[in-house]
Amino acid sequence: MGGDYGPSVTIPAVKKALTNCPSVSFQLYGDASIIKSHLLHHKIHLNRDITVFSSENDVLMTDSPAVALKSKKTSSMRMALEAVRDGQANACVSSGNTGALMAISRFILKMLPGIDRPALVTAIPTLKNDHTFLLDLGANVECDETRLTQYAIMGNELCKCLDEIEKPRIGLLNVGEEDNKGSEKLRLASDLIGALDFIDYSGFVEGNQIFSGDYQVVVTDGFTGNNVLKASEGLIHYLSHKIKDAFERNWWARFCGILAKPVISTFKAEINPEKYNGACLLGLRGIVIKSHGSANINATYFAIKEAVQQAEEKLPQKIRSQLEQARKKLV
Amino acid sequence: MGGDYGPSVTIPAVKKALTNCPSVSFQLYGDASIIKSHLLHHKIHLNRDITVFSSENDVLMTDSPAVALKSKKTSSMRMALEAVRDGQANACVSSGNTGALMAISRFILKMLPGIDRPALVTAIPTLKNDHTFLLDLGANVECDETRLTQYAIMGNELCKCLDEIEKPRIGLLNVGEEDNKGSEKLRLASDLIGALDFIDYSGFVEGNQIFSGDYQVVVTDGFTGNNVLKASEGLIHYLSHKIKDAFERNWWARFCGILAKPVISTFKAEINPEKYNGACLLGLRGIVIKSHGSANINATYFAIKEAVQQAEEKLPQKIRSQLEQARKKLV
Repeated sequence: MGGDYGPSVTIPAVKKALTNCPSVSFQLYGDASIIKSHLLHHKIHLNRDITVFSSENDVLMTDSPAVALKSKKTSSMRMALEAVRDGQANACVSSGNTGALMAISRFILKMLPGIDRPALVTAIPTLKNDHTFLLDLGANVECDETRLTQYAIMGNELCKCLDEIEKPRIGLLNVGEEDNKGSEKLRLASDLIGALDFIDYSGFVEGNQIFSGDYQVVVTDGFTGNNVLKASEGLIHYLSHKIKDAFERNWWARFCGILAKPVISTFKAEINPEKYNGACLLGLRGIVIKSHGSANINATYFAIKEAVQQAEEKLPQKIRSQLEQARKKLV
Repeated sequence: MGGDYGPSVTIPAVKKALTNCPSVSFQLYGDASIIKSHLLHHKIHLNRDITVFSSENDVLMTDSPAVALKSKKTSSMRMALEAVRDGQANACVSSGNTGALMAISRFILKMLPGIDRPALVTAIPTLKNDHTFLLDLGANVECDETRLTQYAIMGNELCKCLDEIEKPRIGLLNVGEEDNKGSEKLRLASDLIGALDFIDYSGFVEGNQIFSGDYQVVVTDGFTGNNVLKASEGLIHYLSHKIKDAFERNWWARFCGILAKPVISTFKAEINPEKYNGACLLGLRGIVIKSHGSANINATYFAIKEAVQQAEEKLPQKIRSQLEQARKKLV
């Protein structure tokens, strides 16, 4: 029910996933009559691969996490998460309220041993490789060295699982590459991560290297990650406007704009944010994927695909065992 | 002597400033014979508007701030800063080592009362207005509420001085606009800045709003500011490559690229980083402008122009009096 478009985007995305991912089956939570009418419209028949569960209400985008947790006990979001907890589902995908999704996930699914709050992570496009995973994106504004180390472990497993890279290169975001840069807490985190032999840790990286593709995972605190991500969105918005303005300045510019349309479309397709949809909450005992509120059908399909991959790889179990290994190592 | 190009860029930039800023006069510090040969080459004659001072050595880009401070006592950088301290010059412009410039400035010029370390600030292009000033950019990785409040006061004065805006809109960077967002220190800083009636404080702003132009000054800690700025540089680098690739993909794309060259040039000129050159160190008892190491003649000229403006406006004195007013207010 979540996101800007609700079932009008979710249902066609489900249809696409049913066609492309043979192993997947769906439990759809929300207003059953609305969902069923959308299924009918898209000629999707209820069978063992697709069942609908009626919820009494929904978490609204304006609900605070506390309100969502206390007074939305029969919401579609909570029911979907309960299905994951009870082993009825392998993963939950939601386009709803991020704060509420985090709070309810944490309450229903519980955290893995040694983790106190989930981290939010997404893929960022890069120059050399397909993408870099950046975490945390704002789940935890204050992170000590232990939490940053947990991010490195979780990001490492995520990348291994989704990109099939045996030893991803991990960097820790700092204001310089030298060992003496940054705060005490960052230097401690660097020592802790460096001590984990199952991680290919490359030391400190600077902001510009997030987009270089030299690192598969970049670790930072939620305050910095959130601001870097949003500033990048703001910058892309600014640049798109400026390009558009330049191609509308006079008749020659407009003429060039028409001719260059396929070229600009290629460019847009390449930096297409759709394929980077699907932030995930890491550190929970179950799989939870947050699809962007404004995600279209294709983007929502990518979020579902990510959930399928994480479920096939049993990501939470893998993270759990790596965290245990780290604990032995670091004690 | 500093920057990637040394006097081959500095001297023509000086020439441009001599032509365009009638009030300016220069003291050039460095290797006198090299400087003089460049002056000769550019047909600039020594007169009361331009004097050359010979230094014994230069701060290298690889010198640590500590080394620069201890063993480069007769460097061009230090001599220029001493001239500011002694009232021989109104401002110092350098393209040299930023860390060394900060350390030597602090040692030679001293900080304004109540400020313990300089802040680094630069202008960022925005959608609605010409630019936004973002500070701190990495001078201080850890900032408490007092320091963030000082940034707001200093940024406010800088914007009034350079942009002639009576009451600039000031925002404090956070992970959300709501009052309860972010860390305790940010909420305290928000209360402190909000209590200053000489500041038009608009509350918390998010990363994407840095480029919107809704705020004339955005305040943040040096860790976040540095990473946001460098990530933006990385993103621009990534996007330029992707655009270039798109216009080189096939013969049609290349043809469009040739036709659209003037359009792309207009776009490039508009987002031209040259006019945003000239980061400044705020909170010192004198004016210090840091020109980018890779600045070309035009960009260096903009840095000089900024120094002239700050000197004409007597910016350090204005900041000093606002800091005193704030102290009375906040006690």
